[in-house]
Amino acid sequence: MTTSRLIPSRLAKRAHYDAETIHPILDEALFCTVSYAVDGQPMAIPTAYARQGDKLYIHGSVGSHFIRTIEAGAPVCISVMLTDGLVLAKSAFHHSVNYRSVVIFATAEKVTDEAERMEALALITDHLVPGRWADLRPTTDSEMRKTTVLAFSLHEASAKVRTGGPSDDPEDMDLPTWSGVVPMQTVRLAPVPQDSDRPLPDYLQ
Amino acid sequence: MTTSRLIPSRLAKRAHYDAETIHPILDEALFCTVSYAVDGQPMAIPTAYARQGDKLYIHGSVGSHFIRTIEAGAPVCISVMLTDGLVLAKSAFHHSVNYRSVVIFATAEKVTDEAERMEALALITDHLVPGRWADLRPTTDSEMRKTTVLAFSLHEASAKVRTGGPSDDPEDMDLPTWSGVVPMQTVRLAPVPQDSDRPLPDYLQ
Repeated sequence: MTTSRLIPSRLAKRAHYDAETIHPILDEALFCTVSYAVDGQPMAIPTAYARQGDKLYIHGSVGSHFIRTIEAGAPVCISVMLTDGLVLAKSAFHHSVNYRSVVIFATAEKVTDEAERMEALALITDHLVPGRWADLRPTTDSEMRKTTVLAFSLHEASAKVRTGGPSDDPEDMDLPTWSGVVPMQTVRLAPVPQDSDRPLPDYLQ
Repeated sequence: MTTSRLIPSRLAKRAHYDAETIHPILDEALFCTVSYAVDGQPMAIPTAYARQGDKLYIHGSVGSHFIRTIEAGAPVCISVMLTDGLVLAKSAFHHSVNYRSVVIFATAEKVTDEAERMEALALITDHLVPGRWADLRPTTDSEMRKTTVLAFSLHEASAKVRTGGPSDDPEDMDLPTWSGVVPMQTVRLAPVPQDSDRPLPDYLQ
């Protein structure tokens, strides 16, 4: 929305419904929280996922209570959040967070086509570590039988984005308190090998 | 559970119900996802929080639909996840994630005592940036009237922790594929000031 991170956020619209905003957030985040309810009791499960086109894929064990419940048609709310910074205003009241989040309301579609199931597993693996799938032995029939793949439409997805600096009250602007943004970032550190004699593949360099 | 990160996780118990495991996870993570359901439709809201003793506090606008729904007694599921590493096995099937998560089942208790309300807001502010609260002008009566503070018991909280290396099938152990862990970490970058003439306070150094 802006080239400066310190434009007060109240000037900007936070909600977005376009793929140009939603897809990059889903592609950058690695994990989502899938919420569902059983007899009014909410449950929430963090899990890996991948997006392709306007579908989001997750996978899980065929025996998992979570997977079986949402496979049976329980409506879900899938949420993803990237935290970009802590926004420190001159008052506690105007402290905030710079974030990019997506919320999806959907019902699971069980993927039954074997090629699409395999592709979804490749997408989920490569979402975590791009290039990884091609380096792995083929997935076996037995492993595929133990795995459920579910797809969710992004039709009812929306994003919220906050950027910029604090939105202080005009009468607070001259207070001596430091105000601004503490940026946050999730980083990957040097890979730790299981077998010290294997060279690190290019996609992990 | 172990001093080496590359002990296969299947040797370890993942679920924990003790404060010694649960509290440090809640104290290290900054944001939780609060899930609730309205007529069977799950909703999920990411928010800041703070823990003190066996209570978790959140706050929000008195007018927020989310706050009003859970204040009225809708059961919630609060989830927190720290992702410590991507676990790369020799097969896609055994890929995993090192994480520390907490799930809390609870119903909101509205905090009405003004001193406890103020203390909760100080805890939430200092959870994001330790030392910040003491540097801020006093919160006004008007700001307090616009703010709801809710507390949740940690009585029904549980943690799940995965550490260690991949748990490969014995027959895959000699495959040449690189396996191991890619550690992940969330870091804070150099603060970006709103007013360039203010010195950076000690608690942000």
